[in-house]
Amino acid sequence: MNGAKAIDTGVADIDGVMDLLGRKARAAVQELAQASSDTKNTALREAAASLRARTADLLAANARDMADAAERENAPSLLDRLKLDKARIDAVAAGLEKIAALTDPVGEILAAWDRPNGLNISRVRVPLGVIGIIYESRPNVTADAGGLCLKSGNAAILRGGSESFHSSGVILDCLQVGLAAAGLPEGSIQQVPTTNRAAVGKMLTMTDYIDIVVPRGGKSLIGRVQQESKIPVIAHLDGLCHTYIDNAANPDMARDIVVNAKMRRPGICGATETLLVDESIAARTLPDIIEALVAAGCELRGDDATRALDVRIAPSSEIDWRTEYLEPILSIRQVDGLDGAIEHIATYSSHHTESIITDDAAHAEKFLNAVDSAIVMHNASTQFADGGEFGMGAEIGISTGRLHARGPVGVEQLTTFKYVVRGAGQVRP
Amino acid sequence: MNGAKAIDTGVADIDGVMDLLGRKARAAVQELAQASSDTKNTALREAAASLRARTADLLAANARDMADAAERENAPSLLDRLKLDKARIDAVAAGLEKIAALTDPVGEILAAWDRPNGLNISRVRVPLGVIGIIYESRPNVTADAGGLCLKSGNAAILRGGSESFHSSGVILDCLQVGLAAAGLPEGSIQQVPTTNRAAVGKMLTMTDYIDIVVPRGGKSLIGRVQQESKIPVIAHLDGLCHTYIDNAANPDMARDIVVNAKMRRPGICGATETLLVDESIAARTLPDIIEALVAAGCELRGDDATRALDVRIAPSSEIDWRTEYLEPILSIRQVDGLDGAIEHIATYSSHHTESIITDDAAHAEKFLNAVDSAIVMHNASTQFADGGEFGMGAEIGISTGRLHARGPVGVEQLTTFKYVVRGAGQVRP
Repeated sequence: MNGAKAIDTGVADIDGVMDLLGRKARAAVQELAQASSDTKNTALREAAASLRARTADLLAANARDMADAAERENAPSLLDRLKLDKARIDAVAAGLEKIAALTDPVGEILAAWDRPNGLNISRVRVPLGVIGIIYESRPNVTADAGGLCLKSGNAAILRGGSESFHSSGVILDCLQVGLAAAGLPEGSIQQVPTTNRAAVGKMLTMTDYIDIVVPRGGKSLIGRVQQESKIPVIAHLDGLCHTYIDNAANPDMARDIVVNAKMRRPGICGATETLLVDESIAARTLPDIIEALVAAGCELRGDDATRALDVRIAPSSEIDWRTEYLEPILSIRQVDGLDGAIEHIATYSSHHTESIITDDAAHAEKFLNAVDSAIVMHNASTQFADGGEFGMGAEIGISTGRLHARGPVGVEQLTTFKYVVRGAGQVRP
Repeated sequence: MNGAKAIDTGVADIDGVMDLLGRKARAAVQELAQASSDTKNTALREAAASLRARTADLLAANARDMADAAERENAPSLLDRLKLDKARIDAVAAGLEKIAALTDPVGEILAAWDRPNGLNISRVRVPLGVIGIIYESRPNVTADAGGLCLKSGNAAILRGGSESFHSSGVILDCLQVGLAAAGLPEGSIQQVPTTNRAAVGKMLTMTDYIDIVVPRGGKSLIGRVQQESKIPVIAHLDGLCHTYIDNAANPDMARDIVVNAKMRRPGICGATETLLVDESIAARTLPDIIEALVAAGCELRGDDATRALDVRIAPSSEIDWRTEYLEPILSIRQVDGLDGAIEHIATYSSHHTESIITDDAAHAEKFLNAVDSAIVMHNASTQFADGGEFGMGAEIGISTGRLHARGPVGVEQLTTFKYVVRGAGQVRP
């Protein structure tokens, strides 16, 4: 997807190959939906054991991917995401074991009630069906995504990046060892056996076989999937997150949260990109925060009022308010109080995560209510926007869409529900 | 949408008019999302009062629609759906009052938990935003859909059929009276002010303004919307529902349920279209059921084994298993027990509603688990597939899709949620 050339895998009839994957996934759906938690957990644990046992094979396959990437002169950041070592392989295996330890969402009774005519109605959680995952270079996604789909009773069709083709192949083999050990169908987790991009195009039209598509990766990947897909997509386009320092903020808390929200890991989607400050306390709180950010290596851009406080701040423009840097860069804007902050966020936010720093409970509640983002926070770092930090277990991504899944997408969000109606011969008058 | 010619409403710049509707709806969203239950209920009750007060105006507008329809030689069934009288207007007003009496879904805390680091996380129900409703001739949908959107805190853009244009206009005026009385923005409920079909095409591309589209009407309308829409759609394509008579069924219960499931109202989406019978008890149970169905005026089509039981049964073909008759016609097929029924349903069902009639609890549970439909029933008539019958209040339709809303779509299903995180200065390690 990112311009790497396709690996010749000897697959000529792409449509035929993809149709076969789709049929096999669809055929696995009923058995998977009814598989017991024990069966699914056995598959996950056996897959983890197989991964550990085949560490040497996986390292060799990964070395092949790394050599190909070096030959293609891929960026160092890509090479870092691609590279596996013994510790990373251990972490991938441990990830599968953690998924096994999660509560099984399938079969959960979400609500149950009786009607005056005696009908008993319950809303029961069931799998979505077949999930297509399209992702880029990280080979661990093969295990994470395959494992989350399996735990939630869904069949998975995985399409990884060509860079990680050989590594992902070994990981898939290990997942298949787990499925076989648990007696689950091979079609439960499959990998697209070609890196030809036409396979992605075909995949996005397979409405008869795939119920939902989840793209994981950069903007261009997600944009292409959202534009081309005939299948519903769960994706987040970007995380343009804001932290707002209210006039009733504790200055030390504000400084610590802002530095963490931007600089802990500037490249994650929950990193703060724009700092909003009530203009009435800017002169009092900002100098200390600017000092701490600069000391941490952050580049700063700001509006005129903020630049007047410190010469190291470059001028910001409209473009900055619209930019998800994903780098150690922060834009700063002074606003006319809480309403000004809410308005700025309504205009520029990507509706991912926003945080208010204040000791005024009424201000906090107003912000939490009025800001229309997947995650809204009070006195906390936006870097907490993460399924694991929420206690929801591993996640496949964070959705900024409003339908079906919003926020962290974990095993529960990969399910739907059905209504079960139990009667004793009732007919409708 | 159904071929009726557009009424000349003097609207020339359709794109401009639609953009304005979109902007006004989007501008209303924040105020609506935070409106109190009392405010919204006042609007609904005042709208109902206004409808009752303006009965004469509405009857006059409806007479105009009816005259136009007669001139166009529309079908009697359309004229019946279109026609309003005093009783029907009372029912429309009462419908708004019933929506006012429903529990407000907005602000409901769906879950709340504490993390070891002291963060408190809650999942809070919030409106979807702007909902586009596209429907056919029934003018009451203007009130029902507008009322359901308002109750759930959403702005609504309504596009009714040209047949009901004048009637819907008066109903919209009454809704506007309610909004004004409650101090809610005019943009909360709007109607597309032209019957030109190009307005629907434009509406389906307005991804910046509309969050979700709900089509209500016949297959061709829903099919067009699903195909053209760039906005996510909640719709059901058809209700090809099955009733299965198990070998452990009580014969009298089976007869009563089957007659009700087909003949109570053959034209609703929850009507049974195909009767499946375990072949081992067909000769014992079917003659009585056939007698009752024929007596009720039902036309029967069946496989060879069933036709051997009664000469009045016409031969069925593959097409019958795939047909939603919506008429007093039933297809009957004998199957090889429970597994045969599950297989037939997996192949032919539209995943709306299916029911098993049996006194064997294990058979019932297997059916309820294995059948992958929005609604599965045991010993009950498929005609109960209805939001009102489920106790969920008025519904905008029944979704056979798997994402977001499945089954009856009421006020809760017109919402999403956000995560609210409350901290005391936490930063992520």
